[in-house]
This record gives sequence, structure tokens and C-alpha cells, in this order.
Amino acid sequence: MTTQQLHQNILDKKSFLCIGLDVDLNKIPQHLLATEDPIFEFNKAIIDATHDLAVAYKPNTAFYEAYGLKGWLSLEKTINYINQKHPEIFTIADAKRGDIGNTSAMYAKAFFEDLNFDSVTVAPYMGKDSVEPFLAFKNKFTIMLALTSNAGAFDFQTKTVEGEELYKTVLKTSKDWENSENLMYVVGATKAEYFTEIRKIVPNSFLLVPGVGAQGGNLQDVCKYGMSDNVGLLINSSRGVIYASNGEDFAEKAREEALKIQQEMAAIL
Amino acid sequence: MTTQQLHQNILDKKSFLCIGLDVDLNKIPQHLLATEDPIFEFNKAIIDATHDLAVAYKPNTAFYEAYGLKGWLSLEKTINYINQKHPEIFTIADAKRGDIGNTSAMYAKAFFEDLNFDSVTVAPYMGKDSVEPFLAFKNKFTIMLALTSNAGAFDFQTKTVEGEELYKTVLKTSKDWENSENLMYVVGATKAEYFTEIRKIVPNSFLLVPGVGAQGGNLQDVCKYGMSDNVGLLINSSRGVIYASNGEDFAEKAREEALKIQQEMAAIL
Repeated sequence: MTTQQLHQNILDKKSFLCIGLDVDLNKIPQHLLATEDPIFEFNKAIIDATHDLAVAYKPNTAFYEAYGLKGWLSLEKTINYINQKHPEIFTIADAKRGDIGNTSAMYAKAFFEDLNFDSVTVAPYMGKDSVEPFLAFKNKFTIMLALTSNAGAFDFQTKTVEGEELYKTVLKTSKDWENSENLMYVVGATKAEYFTEIRKIVPNSFLLVPGVGAQGGNLQDVCKYGMSDNVGLLINSSRGVIYASNGEDFAEKAREEALKIQQEMAAIL
Repeated sequence: MTTQQLHQNILDKKSFLCIGLDVDLNKIPQHLLATEDPIFEFNKAIIDATHDLAVAYKPNTAFYEAYGLKGWLSLEKTINYINQKHPEIFTIADAKRGDIGNTSAMYAKAFFEDLNFDSVTVAPYMGKDSVEPFLAFKNKFTIMLALTSNAGAFDFQTKTVEGEELYKTVLKTSKDWENSENLMYVVGATKAEYFTEIRKIVPNSFLLVPGVGAQGGNLQDVCKYGMSDNVGLLINSSRGVIYASNGEDFAEKAREEALKIQQEMAAIL
């Protein structure tokens, strides 16, 4: 997918909602546990109920790895289902990977080629040669952590590095990397005031924004300070949508929550 | 495993060698490709040939994920084989994970409980609440990136943060986290002169040291500046040992390379 296509999908659906598929067997409706693959059945129902309201889905790989081989199979089935049934959806492997060059190349192969995700999240700590192997893939996107939505973001990311916060150094430095046009960034919604500063550095990059809803962020504020000419935002909601109900009506209730967010987005657009 | 047991194993084997099991199907002997699980067969042969010379094995998860479900199965078989046949071996899942709290908890469960690794590598960028879920596991170790061995280490890790390099801030900050006694750190061998500074901050912590051999680091220098009272070093070699030959004698040649390193270590100890 290209960013132009992503932008067009946002306009068509009047939505920049990303739904996080963080499936915890302790939280899904218990009747699904009797099925052969409860994680996939859950995802399939959520996708069927919300695909016209969302432009992206984001499975967090931790929730699949936690179930070993079975979990990995559920992840494969989920990404294949999205790619086959809803090819217009932008898919994000929320994996937060990053390693030395030859190893990052293996991760890139795993997520971009084998699983055929459109994008993968990566961590910046190991620098340029840990990220560039991901950037080498054409029409695939590497979403790098800049400023995250958790309390620990203040441990290092906002520390002053040679006159400015570390996350700004990360943003600026990454712009010089090869194929940096394939970069997007994770910016937490719990700190809407930071978006103004971030947009000075990356005016047009897409930002993946977790932390709206369950983590306390405000959609209006994020859009006010963070929206670019091509929208440039993917707002993620995970628990608030997928666990709206844990009864047999879970998919219907998930749609209701997604619809509320999509309508708020449509009004903003 | 406890650090006391790890220290005792080092004394018993006169070795602090960690062998990295980074298996690339393009690099292993071609006759193994006819077997049902070439990755596991390769690892098994390497482990059988070197287990008395090494105190730790470190599969890098990227190399398994790159082969999807089959790769994940090979990883499971490899860790189970080590745990059953050589329970004295310290096992490291080189995964470089890190995410918000509930997600890190899922990763910790995956590596410590389901796969039963002794340790896992993590990235520090997201701070305290992204690492503490790993630290909560008793007699399991969390090996956090401090100063890595790649060129990109100089992009952020050595930048000055409020008067000192970022990697020092990372080391110091992490000492205050809950269960910080379960922390070890990744410190690249390509920068032996840094070990003096690092030992002032973490005098007794175990350091996992990649970059000796193929990446250019020198064992003598690392030991001179980095060794602590309880040895406190795990020196990793991956390609230099496991790809010593790509013929039918690969395991034998791997043993020869491991033996050279172990003998050098025995002399130092």
C-alpha cells in the first residue's frame, strides 16, 4: 500500500481508526473457547463487524506469542483473512522489533514477506542500521517508537539530549536514514500538547497514536495539534472496542464503539 | 537458575561462552535440508558438540520467526532439548522485546513460562513499566540493551543526556526498578574501553557481550575491563562458531572453534 492509498481510504471511510487486535483468552466471550481457534474466531467476528469503520488493524504480536505455536497460527490466519477479504485495510504488526542489521533483515522478511503485513513497529534504541533493513521494503512502512503513551516514556524519551528531548533527536535523526519516506512514528495520545512540536519535525508523516480512550487521551486534542494535510493520523483503540462486551453480542457492541469513534472522526474530517 | 548457579557453572566448565543459535537456512550444511526440521537438526548437532564448552545458548528469535510456524516449532524443540538434556545451561531468548505493561507481561509469559527460557533480552526505550513485568519472574533474568555492538549504537546510546551518555542513564535508572536484581545488560565488545565506566555503575551485574570475533571485539580487553568478582560476563559468539564449516563436519568444526575460545577463557579465569 502507498500513503496515497491510505489517505484515500481515510477519505472514503471518513475514518482514521485503527483497531488493535490484542486478544487475551481471559477476556474474550467464553463461548468462543469451545471453538478450534478462539483467537481467530474472535478476530474474524470483530473484523466482519468493523471493517467498514476502520482503516487499519493492529495485532500486537505479544498476545499471539503468549500462546506459542497455536498463537502464531492464529496470527497467520488473521492477517490472511484481512488481506483476502479486505485488501484495502492497512495492517500493522505491532511487534516493536529492532536488532543488528542481519537480524532486523530477518524480522523484516518475517513480517513483510511471509506474513505480508503492510507495516511493523520498531524500537529506535539500536539506531540506523537496526531500522534501515525494514525501510528497504518498497510500499511497506516502518513505524518507529518516538513518544509512547506509557508512564515509562518519561524515563528516557523526554530526557534532554544535547538541548532537546530524546524523542525529538530520534525523529530528526531518522529523517536522514535511507528510504526514510517509509517511516511512520508512534506518538502517544496522552500528551496531545507534544504534537505541535512533533509536527514541526515531521509535518507530513503518518503517526500511529495509541492511548485514546482506555489510556486517557482525547481525540479532539490529538487532531487539533496532530493532523496534517493528508490527515497523517492513525488513532488506535484496542480494549475500548474489542472488549466492549464479553457476551455473545461482543461483535455488535464492538461495532457500536467503533461507530462512535468513526462518527467523531467523520465530524472532524 | 540463580546467578550463583551460573557463576558455579562458569567455574566448573572454565568457560563463560554463550553460543548464539542464529540459524539461517542459506548458511547451514545443505545435506540437512533433506531432514524434516533442518533448523532443529542443526541446533541439536551444535549443542551435542559444544555443551561442555559453553555455559549458555542464545537463539535469536528473528531467525525462527522468519520461518513462520515451522520456525517457531524449531525454537520450541531447541529450548526443550536444551532444558531436558543439559539443564545446567543458561538459556537466553534474544528477542529484544519491550512494550506497555500488560503487553510486556504477555511477552514475559511467552518466554519465561511457555518456552521456559532462563532469560530474555529487552529494549529500554519505553522505560520502567515496559521492563518491570519481566523482572517480576523469580530466578529469571531480563537482559536489557545498554550499549550495543553495532554502528547505530552511536546514534542515540552515546548521546549526552543531562551530562552523561544515554546508556549510563539507562544503567543507573534501571537500578531503581523493582526486582532490579534480576537485570543483566547487553554491552557490545567492540568498545572495550567503555567497560571501566560501566563497571562503576553496575559492578556485579552479568553482562551479555556480543561482538567478540566476527564483529571485531577482543576477548582479552573485554575481560581486563569488564570482569567482576563473580566473572559477570557471558561472551557471545554466533557465526564464528556455528558456521565454522558448512560441510558434513560442521559440528566438529564448531566444537574446534568453541574449544579455542573456551581455552582462552580458562587461561583468563
